[in-house]
Amino acid sequence: MGFLNVHARAEFGSDKMKKVALFGTEHLFCDQYCLEPGQSQKVHAHDSATKLYYVLDGAIEATVGEETRTLQAGDLAFAEPGKIHGITNRSNARARVLVVMGPNPNL
Amino acid sequence: MGFLNVHARAEFGSDKMKKVALFGTEHLFCDQYCLEPGQSQKVHAHDSATKLYYVLDGAIEATVGEETRTLQAGDLAFAEPGKIHGITNRSNARARVLVVMGPNPNL
Repeated sequence: MGFLNVHARAEFGSDKMKKVALFGTEHLFCDQYCLEPGQSQKVHAHDSATKLYYVLDGAIEATVGEETRTLQAGDLAFAEPGKIHGITNRSNARARVLVVMGPNPNL
Repeated sequence: MGFLNVHARAEFGSDKMKKVALFGTEHLFCDQYCLEPGQSQKVHAHDSATKLYYVLDGAIEATVGEETRTLQAGDLAFAEPGKIHGITNRSNARARVLVVMGPNPNL
């Protein structure tokens, strides 16, 4: 099963940002993060992994290192190893983000 | 520099599919592949890496393993280690694909 539609896999949660696992190998995982207004992934860092956020829909505020920007569909943010990163939906609409992290800490 | 707009980084080539490098670390690289009608990335495999294609714009025909499908914006294909994969733009319009591969063979 090497194919999927990302939009069809959207799922939101009322309590917190929903992480929808799309696929994973030892090398990387790919998730869809779905954020209701006000939801976030707190700023954090991984010493030995690289992460990217690609905005699919809506707008998020993304922090990478010392910089914070508002991103919209088509914008990408990436965090090199050790760099702090996080996202918050400060808009009034839902937002969805494609997330890839490698290597996969879960496998 | 942890931010970029993917659409603004589109570049096409008349001779072959254009690979636009967006960023890379030892863990993964992220490119944008831009395909004029008829252009392709030939089917191939990586023994020790995982790759994903996420269609940004237009339509491509993607092969993963023994399966070939036509994918449009929002569709994703992924190839686990050792699995053959490739893409062809069989449409009459340009197509763009976000590509992530980990680990990065170039670093």
